[in-house]
Amino acid sequence: MNIVIIGGVAAGAKAASKIKRLLPNSKVTVFTDDTHVSYSSCGIPYYIEGNFTDYKLLLVRSVEEFKSMGIDIYLQSKVIKILPEQRQVLVCDNNSASLVEYDKLIVATGATPFIPDNLNLSSYNNIFTVRKIEDGLNIRDKMLSSKSAVIVGSGYIGMEILEAFVKNGLRVSVIEKNNKIMSVFDDDISNLIFERLKNEYSDNIEFYTGETITEISGENGLAESVKLSSGKEIQTDIVIFCAGVVPNVQVAADAGIELGKNGAIKVNKLMQTSIENVYACGDCAEKTHIVSGKEVWIPLGSTANKEGRCAAINAAGEFEQFEGVLGSAVTRCLNTTMSMTGLTEKQAASAGFTPVSVRIDKLDRVGYMPDAGEIYLKVVADRVTGLILGAQAIGAVGADKRINSLTPALLSHMTVDEYSNNDLTYSPPYSPTIDPLLNAMMVLKNKIRE
Amino acid sequence: MNIVIIGGVAAGAKAASKIKRLLPNSKVTVFTDDTHVSYSSCGIPYYIEGNFTDYKLLLVRSVEEFKSMGIDIYLQSKVIKILPEQRQVLVCDNNSASLVEYDKLIVATGATPFIPDNLNLSSYNNIFTVRKIEDGLNIRDKMLSSKSAVIVGSGYIGMEILEAFVKNGLRVSVIEKNNKIMSVFDDDISNLIFERLKNEYSDNIEFYTGETITEISGENGLAESVKLSSGKEIQTDIVIFCAGVVPNVQVAADAGIELGKNGAIKVNKLMQTSIENVYACGDCAEKTHIVSGKEVWIPLGSTANKEGRCAAINAAGEFEQFEGVLGSAVTRCLNTTMSMTGLTEKQAASAGFTPVSVRIDKLDRVGYMPDAGEIYLKVVADRVTGLILGAQAIGAVGADKRINSLTPALLSHMTVDEYSNNDLTYSPPYSPTIDPLLNAMMVLKNKIRE
Repeated sequence: MNIVIIGGVAAGAKAASKIKRLLPNSKVTVFTDDTHVSYSSCGIPYYIEGNFTDYKLLLVRSVEEFKSMGIDIYLQSKVIKILPEQRQVLVCDNNSASLVEYDKLIVATGATPFIPDNLNLSSYNNIFTVRKIEDGLNIRDKMLSSKSAVIVGSGYIGMEILEAFVKNGLRVSVIEKNNKIMSVFDDDISNLIFERLKNEYSDNIEFYTGETITEISGENGLAESVKLSSGKEIQTDIVIFCAGVVPNVQVAADAGIELGKNGAIKVNKLMQTSIENVYACGDCAEKTHIVSGKEVWIPLGSTANKEGRCAAINAAGEFEQFEGVLGSAVTRCLNTTMSMTGLTEKQAASAGFTPVSVRIDKLDRVGYMPDAGEIYLKVVADRVTGLILGAQAIGAVGADKRINSLTPALLSHMTVDEYSNNDLTYSPPYSPTIDPLLNAMMVLKNKIRE
Repeated sequence: MNIVIIGGVAAGAKAASKIKRLLPNSKVTVFTDDTHVSYSSCGIPYYIEGNFTDYKLLLVRSVEEFKSMGIDIYLQSKVIKILPEQRQVLVCDNNSASLVEYDKLIVATGATPFIPDNLNLSSYNNIFTVRKIEDGLNIRDKMLSSKSAVIVGSGYIGMEILEAFVKNGLRVSVIEKNNKIMSVFDDDISNLIFERLKNEYSDNIEFYTGETITEISGENGLAESVKLSSGKEIQTDIVIFCAGVVPNVQVAADAGIELGKNGAIKVNKLMQTSIENVYACGDCAEKTHIVSGKEVWIPLGSTANKEGRCAAINAAGEFEQFEGVLGSAVTRCLNTTMSMTGLTEKQAASAGFTPVSVRIDKLDRVGYMPDAGEIYLKVVADRVTGLILGAQAIGAVGADKRINSLTPALLSHMTVDEYSNNDLTYSPPYSPTIDPLLNAMMVLKNKIRE
């Protein structure tokens, strides 16, 4: 069996090693236009922050290690065409182009940071996106000689870069086109995140919401100031674009592989695309949301790993299904953990549910314990069926513990009534006697009965 | 409606306030032989340790606060007889005895530390158990002038007192009659706890397993040394007995209320005892184990709260069921979080399952993050049905997060296959890309298929 994999960060690297374990005699070849393979993209903000100094810690497995497993990796080699009829891909590197045959093809082309095309970003050397190893190295390097920064976008990566920059003493302006920061959360939760950061870091952070950049100016290849849609001008030493990502689907789409409504590659539970012998996985592929049953595009590293594994098992001729995602995510920004799973209240309504929600603001452990910190837990349920639909928790470190205690409940479609019997662990350093999760269920029970 | 409650720590106090909220015109009276009411017994070790200095923080609600809610609390008032035929209780305080009528009676008499009757403990002023507010005050007082200590028993409370004493500079000898410390866990996990404490605190802690105290000697009301079954003699300034608790059921049993095989009061899901209009809740009552379906006695503060609430709702004439417990628990001792839910491998076998287990030893977050710490997660499943039966996790602080992510799975009787689709949150400061929970499920899937 001759397997070709396009892309080698998370899904592609996982698929390669899984197939080789399942079929030791197979030929496994990975083509990637990247300079590195099998690395922790999610760790780049933490490298920039300075949690560790050797960037090589981000590399999970080197080209040499893959080689010793019998897997051939070709870096800086871009697949520019898939030819499904003849089961070949056309690969270009700096010097040559060649046709490579496959029995099974796994597309793991990932996603690319979105950059607006009206700002001529490429003419400045101090404007970056955050995706690849080089981005991390270059940003850290530039950050160390910077005093001020502009971050465009306040999603997960924007928040992580914000932490990194503030911890390194920079004065940061965050530009967000939506009216709220972290708008993946419901508005009340976004407001809380805003207030926590604003209250504690007002000297270091300025937020500009409902704003976009209309103009960048500078000299000698260095951006020096950005102009906002409101007319406001901000001086800066470095600019980071974290304004979302788009799936890399061009090569798949050109080959006639069907895309979903979200623009990512359509796959079934076996990670098969619309074309025979072609699988897709990771950030370039659509996912099924387990709660809504709808197709979504939520590109995350943990999902990419699972999908890579699933694609590999099926490509190898065995059977495995990937059931979908809950949209579970966590990050932190300075003093605030931010975590969610399932549907927000907004999403629940637009998915056709009749959402009812509760927010419990409570200490994460018994109040007499030192280090007790506030967490804000919002749980969303369906008023008609009583089903738990999702939750958001922010605040002290224990916030994500509550979210991960709801993911199995979403997976098994539990109701509020059922969950209210949950026997959570209790001890003063770990939780209050009645956990906010159980408070939330009690309030929701009453709201649903109303 | 005239409601009498015997006992007022967790279940009793909760029941009292819940009934008063449901039936504002009812007469609610609490009799307790204790000197305090409505306090956090679980917080006493943390008071002793010095996490806070005002013991009053342990008091959830004072007698006066209950009074203002319309609830009468009688401290140091012991109910010595229940007369179900005439719906009365006989109450004694220091000066008098009186018959008090009830329409509904709630028995929340709690549990008492077990003390061996052959050692004449009461003749020494530096020997303590850990249960009541005074115990906390007296132990802290004595600890501050002590250099060495003996702790008898290495269960949850023994471990918490051990932390408190070591943090206060005492040299501690722990005497455990079982061959393992923390023998509520499976042996391999107990061994890990032992090794972690031993490696890091060998100068402060000595464990004597498989040993009991055969003799205590001292002068002027102070124990000075204890003799072990092996003949070894240990000098000590203070002795703490944490050798388990026994349910306080005498007054209930005398009245003909049925007890379970575990010696605690038998109740149904409505917290009703075998005698009409008499409810029982908290540490004096039996519980149903949701995984095994068997009656068990696992006395815990979080359960007491829920049972008190359930008993109150039913006594007030409304309807609520308490489905049972999973045996979920957590504590810490120094550098080690210890947490569990459901059945251990031992318990699973004796409950009639065919247990298969896996242990994942892994960092709690991505290895390049500072403060990454080892956790040891053991998951037990049933080989025949694939059902998840229980889990134990110890080590770094993130251990209990994994346990609380399994409790809903036990509650809804999920299989290993089902749970392997769980979408847990991921970010480098919070977990590795593939969480140990998912590693565990993958290994178990293969073991079950064998």
